[in-house]
Amino acid sequence: MNITELTGLTGDTICAVSTPQGRGGIAIIRVSGPQALSIVQRRWQGKALDSIKSHTVHLGRLVDADGEILDQAVLTVYRAPNSFTGEDVVELACHGSMWIQQQVVQTLIDAGCRHATAGEFTRRAFANGRMDLSQAEAVADVIEAQSRAAHHVAMNQMRGRYSDELKALRDKLLHFTALIELELDFGEEDVTFADRSEVTALAHEIHTSITRLADSYRDGNAIKGGIPVAIVGQTNAGKSTLLNALLGDERALVSNIHGTTRDTIEDTVVMGGTLFRFIDTAGIRQSSDAVERMGIERSWQAIDKASLVLWVVDVTSADTSMARDIMAHCSGKALIAVLNKTDLDDDFAARSELNDLLPQDTPVVAISAKSDSDVEALRDLIVKTAFMPSMDSDAVIVTNARHYQALTRARDAIARAIDGLDSGLSGDLLDQDIRECLHWLGEITGEITTDNILGEIFSHFCVGK
Amino acid sequence: MNITELTGLTGDTICAVSTPQGRGGIAIIRVSGPQALSIVQRRWQGKALDSIKSHTVHLGRLVDADGEILDQAVLTVYRAPNSFTGEDVVELACHGSMWIQQQVVQTLIDAGCRHATAGEFTRRAFANGRMDLSQAEAVADVIEAQSRAAHHVAMNQMRGRYSDELKALRDKLLHFTALIELELDFGEEDVTFADRSEVTALAHEIHTSITRLADSYRDGNAIKGGIPVAIVGQTNAGKSTLLNALLGDERALVSNIHGTTRDTIEDTVVMGGTLFRFIDTAGIRQSSDAVERMGIERSWQAIDKASLVLWVVDVTSADTSMARDIMAHCSGKALIAVLNKTDLDDDFAARSELNDLLPQDTPVVAISAKSDSDVEALRDLIVKTAFMPSMDSDAVIVTNARHYQALTRARDAIARAIDGLDSGLSGDLLDQDIRECLHWLGEITGEITTDNILGEIFSHFCVGK
Repeated sequence: MNITELTGLTGDTICAVSTPQGRGGIAIIRVSGPQALSIVQRRWQGKALDSIKSHTVHLGRLVDADGEILDQAVLTVYRAPNSFTGEDVVELACHGSMWIQQQVVQTLIDAGCRHATAGEFTRRAFANGRMDLSQAEAVADVIEAQSRAAHHVAMNQMRGRYSDELKALRDKLLHFTALIELELDFGEEDVTFADRSEVTALAHEIHTSITRLADSYRDGNAIKGGIPVAIVGQTNAGKSTLLNALLGDERALVSNIHGTTRDTIEDTVVMGGTLFRFIDTAGIRQSSDAVERMGIERSWQAIDKASLVLWVVDVTSADTSMARDIMAHCSGKALIAVLNKTDLDDDFAARSELNDLLPQDTPVVAISAKSDSDVEALRDLIVKTAFMPSMDSDAVIVTNARHYQALTRARDAIARAIDGLDSGLSGDLLDQDIRECLHWLGEITGEITTDNILGEIFSHFCVGK
Repeated sequence: MNITELTGLTGDTICAVSTPQGRGGIAIIRVSGPQALSIVQRRWQGKALDSIKSHTVHLGRLVDADGEILDQAVLTVYRAPNSFTGEDVVELACHGSMWIQQQVVQTLIDAGCRHATAGEFTRRAFANGRMDLSQAEAVADVIEAQSRAAHHVAMNQMRGRYSDELKALRDKLLHFTALIELELDFGEEDVTFADRSEVTALAHEIHTSITRLADSYRDGNAIKGGIPVAIVGQTNAGKSTLLNALLGDERALVSNIHGTTRDTIEDTVVMGGTLFRFIDTAGIRQSSDAVERMGIERSWQAIDKASLVLWVVDVTSADTSMARDIMAHCSGKALIAVLNKTDLDDDFAARSELNDLLPQDTPVVAISAKSDSDVEALRDLIVKTAFMPSMDSDAVIVTNARHYQALTRARDAIARAIDGLDSGLSGDLLDQDIRECLHWLGEITGEITTDNILGEIFSHFCVGK
């Protein structure tokens, strides 16, 4: 089955508005397919499209079937294969009225276009070999990126760094199978031992690379969805006030994520170019009330999911009776102790008490969330503490759950091959594991894929991309 | 004072996102001004901008001040004067993420651009003589048009038909002054009489043209804001049900206009390519209750403002006791009598009773708003009754209150000139009226204007246009 059949393309010509929905100065309507030029020609008054050079723009008029002028427009022609989709593409820049956008798309459909499905332009770019599947997926990530870090990772992926790394892995796996086949061919002549040491070294190298990629998903997921930061502490320590203070001026960049429970409030904000997801929790204290204990249980769960924990302590009460429980749950997590309400009491007796309780090197910051005092210093500390070196490097980071799943399966397959090598498994059985490993990597780049998977991937795109 | 000073341009280079706000496949950032090419060059990795031909597109990369890649982008150069603004223009088509749009605008500002104010690109197009003021205003109308009729009128204006008509008027007025001056020069030689008959004919011609334009504002306003249709009738005749039935399937195109009073509900809908504004009114009946009488008074006011009145009568009660009052208020308006609730009673005794009451040729339609029966026929009748021949023709229609005001003043000036001619006023006094008439027409096209007026006009544009 060739890739065009797989991607369900029928060689027709599609059109859609590619700019954001709504009214604006300019809207772009994109047309792609073998009939792009001839269909647009039927609705175009201006220079004849077949005489227009690729990558040039022309002023003219868009008309409907009756010749009524819909708009003055600027038309750009991109001739196959030098276009985003690899097909003939015409882009029409119209005035951005809702009415014009509707009418132009309608009249192009009347003239022979089909309205594009979600992500269909990118899907065609993939089908025509303009990009692999991981690059196509990165297009959607680039459009959705909310922070510098998420954008950086998505751009690296779109520009093909991830694809390059997967291609290098694939080449190594193919080299592996070549070595195995050599062993099979010359099996009778006792070449097994010498080859196997080389093969084993190669298998470990591949395993290490795949493991690094799979492990990067933890960072990748945090970069894309926001680094989870739990705000915990005893009742009335000022956790919600702190959340509001942290979001404060940045509210413009904030989106609300409705908590799955009434007791956990989540909010994201970009600080220092990175997206953070703050989780405000129910106050923690000893309680015999069943409902309250459920809320506290959720607070513990929030800590489990967080990369960083802000432990808020009220300096005026300095009740550290729950410290042991909180610290037990924070084991292995980045932790910042926040002494709050310094506006009410600036004698930080609590600080020395906390210092005794906390693991060495745990940073302690004194603030007043209410009067916004020293919150900026806390922000800087959060950004510094949560910083992942991977975010600023050009190392490939996996951000996609589908890729993560395929990578773990590829890793399991190469691990089985390593076990097989250790236990002297025959070459043809090893070959099976390697082929499975290749299969899972091929799923990421789209060399091996099904229509269902493609349908699922592109359905999350916006129409017009 | 030259026009560049008037429009407050300082020769700097501006930038803004020109596509609708939000996330999408593509966003366009437009840069215009003498430094457009050199500023973009500082953030562009790709073919050197000074070697790029006008009206060609090029793939490259947008980078920030540190050389970090912001996006792969498609760049189009329009060299002065062959651009929308008449200045050097660079258009950057980026991926439509909010983050990329923010960052690209930010880095262009860092590189030397100023963020454009609302409508500043169009204002520059006007200042550089690419269009007159009425055409510039039509750009905003084109973007806002919600219906075929509104779009048609705005397109005609943008394409300069209105400007052409005003220019013809201006030429006639200048001819008028030339004739008057001839009379002044040769006044001693008794050429007055012959000239004055020609001048009088010309003045009447001008007066007729200006009056036609000013009168078209009634249609123009209805086309732009929706043709006002009042739904009136006695209490419980089913007026609100009818409103909902009329809006029915078209709800997607409906916008709510909050009534100025609780008793009048307005809603717009496009039917047959025309925008209608339906006004649901309080039921009309004899009442001694002060509050109810205020509501009824508002219903009469709604009729006064309407172009078309739907008089709804309940066939099951067929109470026509208020018929005389209703018809008195509908005098001179288009009227349709709607017999409602045919689902409850299909014996239309009320019809003949109504026929006796109504002026001859008033259409009577029997419907059931509740069961949506024959509402479609009523819709067709409304579209047919409200049809303004001007909507489909290429006749110039004034849609702008500012223009209407200037036209009425111009009309008053030419009327004074005609009076002056009749009463044998001296040429230099006539000349004053003609110059005033020219002044008001010049205000429409922007030949005579002030910075305040321009500021007011362009502040209603979107940024990026």
